[in-house]
Amino acid sequence: MEPLVRLIRVIADPPSLQDNTGDLDRLQRVLAPRLSGVAPRVPYGRLAAVATAFRQAGFQGAAVVNDLPTGPELVDFLADPPQILPAVALDLGTTQLEANLIDLNTGKILAHGHCENPQIELGADILTRIHFACRDQGLAILHERIIATTNKLTGDLADRAGLAPTTIRALTVSGNTTMVHFFLNMNPYYLCREPYIPAVNSPDPCHAIDLALTLHPAAVVWVLPGVGSYFGGDLISGILACNLDQAEQTAMLIDVGTNAEVVIGNRDWLIACAGAAGPALEGGVARMGVRATPGAIEHVEIEPASGVITYGTIDGQKPYGICGSGMIDLVAGLYLARIIDLRGKFRPGSAKDRLLVGPNGLSFIVAPPAEAADGQPVFLDQIDLDALMRSKAAMYAILTTLMNQVGLTFAQLARIYVAGAFGQHIAPRQAIILGMLPDLPVETFVPIGNSSLKGALKMLTDAGVRRRSLELIRKITYIELNVNQEFMIRFSGSRFIPHTDHTLFPSVPHFRDEEP
Amino acid sequence: MEPLVRLIRVIADPPSLQDNTGDLDRLQRVLAPRLSGVAPRVPYGRLAAVATAFRQAGFQGAAVVNDLPTGPELVDFLADPPQILPAVALDLGTTQLEANLIDLNTGKILAHGHCENPQIELGADILTRIHFACRDQGLAILHERIIATTNKLTGDLADRAGLAPTTIRALTVSGNTTMVHFFLNMNPYYLCREPYIPAVNSPDPCHAIDLALTLHPAAVVWVLPGVGSYFGGDLISGILACNLDQAEQTAMLIDVGTNAEVVIGNRDWLIACAGAAGPALEGGVARMGVRATPGAIEHVEIEPASGVITYGTIDGQKPYGICGSGMIDLVAGLYLARIIDLRGKFRPGSAKDRLLVGPNGLSFIVAPPAEAADGQPVFLDQIDLDALMRSKAAMYAILTTLMNQVGLTFAQLARIYVAGAFGQHIAPRQAIILGMLPDLPVETFVPIGNSSLKGALKMLTDAGVRRRSLELIRKITYIELNVNQEFMIRFSGSRFIPHTDHTLFPSVPHFRDEEP
Repeated sequence: MEPLVRLIRVIADPPSLQDNTGDLDRLQRVLAPRLSGVAPRVPYGRLAAVATAFRQAGFQGAAVVNDLPTGPELVDFLADPPQILPAVALDLGTTQLEANLIDLNTGKILAHGHCENPQIELGADILTRIHFACRDQGLAILHERIIATTNKLTGDLADRAGLAPTTIRALTVSGNTTMVHFFLNMNPYYLCREPYIPAVNSPDPCHAIDLALTLHPAAVVWVLPGVGSYFGGDLISGILACNLDQAEQTAMLIDVGTNAEVVIGNRDWLIACAGAAGPALEGGVARMGVRATPGAIEHVEIEPASGVITYGTIDGQKPYGICGSGMIDLVAGLYLARIIDLRGKFRPGSAKDRLLVGPNGLSFIVAPPAEAADGQPVFLDQIDLDALMRSKAAMYAILTTLMNQVGLTFAQLARIYVAGAFGQHIAPRQAIILGMLPDLPVETFVPIGNSSLKGALKMLTDAGVRRRSLELIRKITYIELNVNQEFMIRFSGSRFIPHTDHTLFPSVPHFRDEEP
Repeated sequence: MEPLVRLIRVIADPPSLQDNTGDLDRLQRVLAPRLSGVAPRVPYGRLAAVATAFRQAGFQGAAVVNDLPTGPELVDFLADPPQILPAVALDLGTTQLEANLIDLNTGKILAHGHCENPQIELGADILTRIHFACRDQGLAILHERIIATTNKLTGDLADRAGLAPTTIRALTVSGNTTMVHFFLNMNPYYLCREPYIPAVNSPDPCHAIDLALTLHPAAVVWVLPGVGSYFGGDLISGILACNLDQAEQTAMLIDVGTNAEVVIGNRDWLIACAGAAGPALEGGVARMGVRATPGAIEHVEIEPASGVITYGTIDGQKPYGICGSGMIDLVAGLYLARIIDLRGKFRPGSAKDRLLVGPNGLSFIVAPPAEAADGQPVFLDQIDLDALMRSKAAMYAILTTLMNQVGLTFAQLARIYVAGAFGQHIAPRQAIILGMLPDLPVETFVPIGNSSLKGALKMLTDAGVRRRSLELIRKITYIELNVNQEFMIRFSGSRFIPHTDHTLFPSVPHFRDEEP
């Protein structure tokens, strides 16, 4: 345990005529040997508070010291050292904020919580919000909302642990580059415009008071650094969570959200890229696509011979939509049952009464009105299917472009870590059938959950991880796929199931008699 | 020239798809090789401003970088680098503030100014102000006054140089420990209570905005460190001004204000002490004692045989009081003319009509009513004379106690630097006659003027001096004289003119036939 904030017990000699150094200087002198010989500095805003508290405590108690990249920083002195030194790790997601409250003394998790990102009302996706930010006062509004919600979430966590929010001494923040810009009140205008440049990738840690966060005013706020507009601190966090940068064997990390972000590497090198892949997999784009919430269809099976369909929903509630993993299951099943062809087009007459002609052409009924939550059928139409085909094509094109850049084959990867809700719920086998993930043994794929939050947690307790976070961003070679020619060519080849080159997917049935 | 704040010219490659690093990160990357390989950090308050300015300037212009003990700090970016980079050195005196506005690019002084310390209305001396500070809101009032006055003074200097105050990028502050506490809004309660402990000796630099100073908000505010309640940053500044800590030969620095502060040493060691010595030498204590302002009698001669008195005033104006140097001249003359005895008591009948009996016993008329500015005589009575005798005794006792501590004789001193208005105006010979300064060749004494301001100026332009200022405070051994037994014994022996042991002053006439 080398936490971001430490309580250091101090018993200092009281001042005397023989030892007349100043109060703060005395405290710094006592602390230096405990901090590798470095006397901690004191920010002006804490000068009077620390000096007064140290004297009132009779020169005994515990110093609160922040471990910053520029050295130790003394920010408080407590006469009665608390049992718990609270801190929060925050995943600042586009759609959801998720956080853990922990005790820095022990690393123990005290509370966990999440809430919707209230910026959704101002723009469901990142691009809409960037446009909103560029309106008069737009950025200020987005910034204030995210700060207010962070305050609400950290306050709730503190409440549940029976603590005052102002006892929270640190906050690590992991988010995509745009969310980080909103959080720091930085102009996001250039993030979405070629050549896609952030205002800042690696902000220095600041204090809660700087951002009007209602934690302890001198709480360290450490935002994980990113490497580009489409490769943010959430991915750096993911790398730290699965130790990609420490392993001898080459591995890959995939995070699918609005974008697909991919890193490949080992302890010697790291190459990353990102590209738009996700919209069809999450709510807001496909009409039936929803986030992985209760009532979302998360698993689908289609008996190839009979076409009999079975599905499971989250929490077993009546279905109201299909989440990312359900969508992949569904389309893989439709392919194996030959209800869609290798281009991802419905085959007329292939599914009897399940396949109907609707206002958008053919439409496949997953859950008829009688089974559905709101009496409306849950279906997949050609428009949504086309979107999914583009997403899966983009995903595989990203992966192959990246592999080609590093001159490796998929078989040389020891592990493929799959982050996020996508990784948590999808069946790798179904994604392989679609040609979305490479045709490797399913045990190669390791779901790692919310790695953005996990990395932020490690930042709180591990000095090595904090150091690595800063080294990482210099170590990563980032390839911008938004304008990559190779990616565009590979994208075209990936718009078939599983691929135009079916030798890439030997385990997936290939239907030679299909129409082209 | 290694100024505290530097303008670093930058021509950065504009961002591209091949070089997609963030704006701030790009600027930091370009600056690092110019800053010994260290990428400057950016405080949160400047994050958006610097990133925006760098982009708007087309990635070309000049970065403003503060040189702090913790490393370089990037605080601004200017598309059109100004010709002048203004900064202010401030001597924060108990009675007067004095400041220089300089150009950090060249070191050239652009303006000089001074004003009264407005805290005088709340307490003429430091002790009264400390007591005031401990009343409800007292410290806040003292703090606000000194900040407001600093803003006024720096604003006036900027006006005179034709600059906006917000173009000022740095402020170095040199003051005694109490004034520094007021300036930083720190509790001074323990400064004047045994064992005389400051809340802080060595505060870290902060920004103008922290102290509500109306300079550039990110201007560095660097307060010179002190070593004790009675040995403040003004003395450290003095040591830096005369390079006492760099010399091979041992020398001494004397600064007489409300206290006498003395340092002795060389490049290997420094020993310092301070004690109350000055009150009789400046305005506010002796009724006729005034500060060295126009109309103050600064030189006095008394023809020993005839008793004829001549005097000079500052600016040749009609006299209204006697300043420190005039007081010393006067008393030395009174002694040589045998108008006072070796105990410093008026000898009745020794000065005809100049020596009158007043309400406080005998009183010597320096300037009769007809010559004086306000028609009131300028005189010295026994009470003022007694005060001066105590001061001069304290001064010599301080010097001899310190010399004894280091095991050296006065003759071993290469130089005695005499700081402040006192050093500027006194005739060393007269001070030797009184037994206030040791009996050395007058060329040993080197007046160095306002060394507090001079040191603060050096801090602005010389990185070596800034480093030394921090090393110095660890190098100095400080002896608290307020409770020193040896000092008390030596003080008693020094209450005669020139001393009970007249062999210590071979050059001074000794009147054997005096009454004891």
